[in-house]
Amino acid sequence: MNKVTQILGIKYPIIQGGMVWVSGAKLAAAVSKAGGLGVIGAGSMAPDLLDQQIKKAKELTSNPIAVNLPLLYSKIEEQIKICLKNDIKILITSAGSPKKFTSYLKEQGVIVIHVTSSPLLAKKCEDAGIDIVIAEGFEAGGHNGRDEITTMCLIPQTVDAINIPVIAAGGIYDARGIKAAFALGASAVQMGTRFVMSKESSAHDNYKNLLLNANSSSTKLVMKKHVPVRLFKNRFFEEIENMETRGAQAQELIEHLGKGRAKKGMLLGDIEDGELEIGQVCSSIKKVESVEDIFKKLIIAFE
Amino acid sequence: MNKVTQILGIKYPIIQGGMVWVSGAKLAAAVSKAGGLGVIGAGSMAPDLLDQQIKKAKELTSNPIAVNLPLLYSKIEEQIKICLKNDIKILITSAGSPKKFTSYLKEQGVIVIHVTSSPLLAKKCEDAGIDIVIAEGFEAGGHNGRDEITTMCLIPQTVDAINIPVIAAGGIYDARGIKAAFALGASAVQMGTRFVMSKESSAHDNYKNLLLNANSSSTKLVMKKHVPVRLFKNRFFEEIENMETRGAQAQELIEHLGKGRAKKGMLLGDIEDGELEIGQVCSSIKKVESVEDIFKKLIIAFE
Repeated sequence: MNKVTQILGIKYPIIQGGMVWVSGAKLAAAVSKAGGLGVIGAGSMAPDLLDQQIKKAKELTSNPIAVNLPLLYSKIEEQIKICLKNDIKILITSAGSPKKFTSYLKEQGVIVIHVTSSPLLAKKCEDAGIDIVIAEGFEAGGHNGRDEITTMCLIPQTVDAINIPVIAAGGIYDARGIKAAFALGASAVQMGTRFVMSKESSAHDNYKNLLLNANSSSTKLVMKKHVPVRLFKNRFFEEIENMETRGAQAQELIEHLGKGRAKKGMLLGDIEDGELEIGQVCSSIKKVESVEDIFKKLIIAFE
Repeated sequence: MNKVTQILGIKYPIIQGGMVWVSGAKLAAAVSKAGGLGVIGAGSMAPDLLDQQIKKAKELTSNPIAVNLPLLYSKIEEQIKICLKNDIKILITSAGSPKKFTSYLKEQGVIVIHVTSSPLLAKKCEDAGIDIVIAEGFEAGGHNGRDEITTMCLIPQTVDAINIPVIAAGGIYDARGIKAAFALGASAVQMGTRFVMSKESSAHDNYKNLLLNANSSSTKLVMKKHVPVRLFKNRFFEEIENMETRGAQAQELIEHLGKGRAKKGMLLGDIEDGELEIGQVCSSIKKVESVEDIFKKLIIAFE
């Protein structure tokens, strides 16, 4: 039995990435039903919506469900309360210090996983009492580390730096990637992009269709002066990149971004002026399938 | 028997990267003796020196020796003549169109390998008659692709795009990385950084010692407006990065670079003002060992 499946009480060591706007109750429940760990992405949810989505997911499956909580979120304490009230036993924290809530969450009987992008941060996680680390490489979609360490380099470095289990993320979408991640020393994988392109994700159909026509140069990491983020190259991306090319600084970029661009793109389907957070593997996925069918292909890695 | 070892007539599917200033006859011969493919990096050699280095390598071993030829080099035709005259049977071409010399080289009985950074270019290689493709990811040292595709994403995409064998490069330094590359579909691996940090490389001791103290954020890809290159973060790197941050364009960067910076750093050991091309894995290598000892650890992957 695998260390991560044992700790989390799941069948397969496959974690679905908790993402903004695309991973609600429906996707999380489908992944948990299939034997992986389904994750509700709380980063784009007001506390009331999070409460509703957790309840909905729990109605759909009795298997473990986790919540991904970006710690920079203004109502993070309220979100934590909602998770505890709803008896969520696995929390994935990111975008903040693992010192802040880990002791408290552990006292409440929660298993705490933290997302890292460097072996240095992974060590800090271990010291803070984190149970499992997700090591996410440069090729991953959405927010990303400043050091640009790729999955191939990050996994062995992280495994060598700490004694707690490591979940590999970034660039994994099929059984080959899962096998590679395990060869590098990971005990499980997290996949985001592969599940954005599932029937159960709440990504808009315009967005899913756009991704089906992606090529290997369709994404790029931008906004390195603000918060590095990997985006699909659409008009919104080009505006940001042009500003960076002429030397625009963080404040100007933040103002240009405005608000609601991610919702506009990923949930509402404005594929030109919306912000589309996606991983480099998007071009390798040529079909939007059900989570059940996706799992059938992934678990070949464990046969 | 593996496709690549069969074509190249070598024992282990391990190729040493042909690098500027650090891979001469001594390193190439040691790798070929150990059962891999030793490669002389012609990119930093005047034709006379190349002639001398090939002759020296052939005196040191009767196993196959290859030469890496960056096609943008001004005296490339002269270099090709020297390789043919010295009966080099394996050439690795890069930094130029695979259409230019492949037919001619094949007529001369040479096995031609081309370095690519995208599945699109890999397809062009196959169409041009290339025998084997090296797919090199974003984490690799030195010159790099514009699309920033990481090894984890690039290998399966390249394997799926072509029918000729794929050698994985970028981010590989130990048996775990080799196993991962094979899981992703590669038929062999190329390693550069691992061999820069060998006793037989001609990298200056100052440089090797600097690398022994690297951490996971010690390298970065810069000069994306000119020729993207992954460098060790020293004073030279910082100058380039500061220029880019304020929006400097290609011409200004090229002028600032001047000439001989790579030689100054890597061969002559000026670790502050020299250009140090190295891969993201440098921080994982904690010992300068002989090629023979390095191979002992690598070949565990095939046991």
